[in-house]
Amino acid sequence: MNDVSGPKRSRAGDPAPFYEAHVFCCINERPAGHPRGCCKAKGSEKLRDYMKARAKEFGLSRLRINASGCLDRCELGPTMVIYPEGVWYSVRTREDVDEVLQRHLIEGGRVARLMLKPDDKLPPAR
Amino acid sequence: MNDVSGPKRSRAGDPAPFYEAHVFCCINERPAGHPRGCCKAKGSEKLRDYMKARAKEFGLSRLRINASGCLDRCELGPTMVIYPEGVWYSVRTREDVDEVLQRHLIEGGRVARLMLKPDDKLPPAR
Repeated sequence: MNDVSGPKRSRAGDPAPFYEAHVFCCINERPAGHPRGCCKAKGSEKLRDYMKARAKEFGLSRLRINASGCLDRCELGPTMVIYPEGVWYSVRTREDVDEVLQRHLIEGGRVARLMLKPDDKLPPAR
Repeated sequence: MNDVSGPKRSRAGDPAPFYEAHVFCCINERPAGHPRGCCKAKGSEKLRDYMKARAKEFGLSRLRINASGCLDRCELGPTMVIYPEGVWYSVRTREDVDEVLQRHLIEGGRVARLMLKPDDKLPPAR
């Protein structure tokens, strides 16, 4: 296996960011009964639509909230990842979405109770 | 309008990256004749499938190649963005995909001829 990791991936001379914050919300759907489950069955698409609408209400600029294919953390879903910082969240409710918008995207903080760590395999304790 | 930009978005204490490199390929489809065009009509879905298969052949670990919804740079499509570095490319052919895989993702360089700048409105000159 080759590894694509490096000491630092950004390079001097790279263009400025096109979006200051780029959110990807998994909306992947698996067949019913799949052992890993899927984000869509847990309501991810509606939560993503809600997040997009709320961000618009807040008038947040240079922010993009995208749907994405399977982020491969299905058991923890609905999952989202925010770049460039690469911070992952599991959001299950509109209140979770509001908290990520307010605390992370507007205030620049973190929502510790919803944040995923690289070795998380099950949903974070609530 | 509020702005979500900040001096530096990563924070001490953030979890380690889950993927070292996370590629999002727009596969959005618009109705035929839409003035902005769309990535899917330019073959983005097949190029994304090709990229995923090639990355697997190379045995690249800690790399994820995702499909995404509209990245809103339709005129420049097929577009992709690689995080955490936030570097954008317009890729039209399998050769373009191979070059991004080899030069950017494996070697850690950049493919200047395909790279998008924030103010690009039309496809880069080839």
